[in-house]
Amino acid sequence: MGRVTARRPVLRIRDGHQVRRPDTLTVEEPLEIRVGARPLTVTMRTPGHDFDLAAGFLVSEGVVSESGQIAGIRYCAGATADGTNTYNVVDVTLADRVAPPDPSLERNFYTTSSCGLCGKASLEAVRTSATWAVADDPICISPETLAALPDRLRAAQRVFDSTGGLHAAGLFTADGELVFLREDVGRHNAVDKVVGHALRESMLPLRETILMVSGRASFELVQKALMAGIPMLAAVSAPSSLAVDLAAQNGLTLIGFLRGTSMNVYTGCERLQPIPVG
Amino acid sequence: MGRVTARRPVLRIRDGHQVRRPDTLTVEEPLEIRVGARPLTVTMRTPGHDFDLAAGFLVSEGVVSESGQIAGIRYCAGATADGTNTYNVVDVTLADRVAPPDPSLERNFYTTSSCGLCGKASLEAVRTSATWAVADDPICISPETLAALPDRLRAAQRVFDSTGGLHAAGLFTADGELVFLREDVGRHNAVDKVVGHALRESMLPLRETILMVSGRASFELVQKALMAGIPMLAAVSAPSSLAVDLAAQNGLTLIGFLRGTSMNVYTGCERLQPIPVG
Repeated sequence: MGRVTARRPVLRIRDGHQVRRPDTLTVEEPLEIRVGARPLTVTMRTPGHDFDLAAGFLVSEGVVSESGQIAGIRYCAGATADGTNTYNVVDVTLADRVAPPDPSLERNFYTTSSCGLCGKASLEAVRTSATWAVADDPICISPETLAALPDRLRAAQRVFDSTGGLHAAGLFTADGELVFLREDVGRHNAVDKVVGHALRESMLPLRETILMVSGRASFELVQKALMAGIPMLAAVSAPSSLAVDLAAQNGLTLIGFLRGTSMNVYTGCERLQPIPVG
Repeated sequence: MGRVTARRPVLRIRDGHQVRRPDTLTVEEPLEIRVGARPLTVTMRTPGHDFDLAAGFLVSEGVVSESGQIAGIRYCAGATADGTNTYNVVDVTLADRVAPPDPSLERNFYTTSSCGLCGKASLEAVRTSATWAVADDPICISPETLAALPDRLRAAQRVFDSTGGLHAAGLFTADGELVFLREDVGRHNAVDKVVGHALRESMLPLRETILMVSGRASFELVQKALMAGIPMLAAVSAPSSLAVDLAAQNGLTLIGFLRGTSMNVYTGCERLQPIPVG
């Protein structure tokens, strides 16, 4: 975990004064994910929990849905010309009975299923590939508990305060207890790391949990929640139109602008305990 | 441009009170970019300036660097089963003498050049593929002018205030004048739209300009600036370690945490006018 942050010199300018000092930055490096020794994708990520990231990526893409479908994950030594291990290439070995990823996945998940690539095709692609349905998940949570999640997520972030550069994704219970969190320079990666850890611990589907993310709620984050069986996604910032549509179509509760005592509930508001009148 | 925002119902909760109302959201839809009728990539983007996005993506990937290298860009009608045009598939026709993208680009730019995929390989890949050098660009700007850019960018954003969900990228002169900006649900896309517009207007390389972005400064954003010949990148939030390393190696001025009268100058501080003593 020594590579999560790095120091670089910086010239800080404040109100007309300037000072040179070292600054702590979030590390960003490429990770190549291979499946059965075949390169599948490259993502720019913060090192740490790389096996979780690889496993979670494969869950998001519909390749695996339970821990037994992965036989092993390892760093590839000898990937460089001089044979050193950069710890930036991981190889996932699937169990015998698991079909390898569709080659077209190398380009993009959505292209495989779409007939003309409209938002509708993207929605359909997720519906047909999700292993679990979240629509009947009985989770119910109070607005007060929800309002406490951003501070709890922030308090649990180890790196953010020193760099200001990391996205966080945290998994919470309906009582507002943090199960665990992951951080990354990329918000998609942070979620993949959460889902991958859950897969490897045989926790999927993540019924009756809330996924809280530090940024915005895009289509892809809703998709990742659905692929992991998570019934509720809460974001500090705005959702997109397609995120709301995908959540609505699949019965996921989507909450945006969760700040202080305020929030916007876009879909699935039946899972929020009613606010007492008076 | 009618699809940049969309209305969806929302339950707003504020301090224990709740109200149902319509909410304005940023539209997110997939865009498939084809080159010579061959699918190259799919990105989740906000519709609008799609030809700029496609052109800018090809600049970022090193496929084109001047307007004459693109013979035409069009939406693909008939991409759906029923023959309708979703306006979510564009096809770029390259000029005769231009080499089509490397097939391995379909997976990821960085995999093509790397021998083991460390940060160093990523840095090297950009250096060998960049058309222009920015290190000798003579741009010089005062800290006061820089400090004014975030407000100017925000003031020029048409959609942000209604949705809170759009990233912006704006191109500025050394005098702090906005040349033009582009917005997108994805921050990479916003920059590709800026670069693509510049390519199509034969403005590349973008010497003596500053690219201002509303979010963080990642490796990929520095890469995009370099591929467009932009000598200075300023971001409201944090840079990553690899972004700083890439900027340092190529002589790009990188500024982070540009807020109020404060900023962090990570590289190329010789391009900032000295602060008067006293």
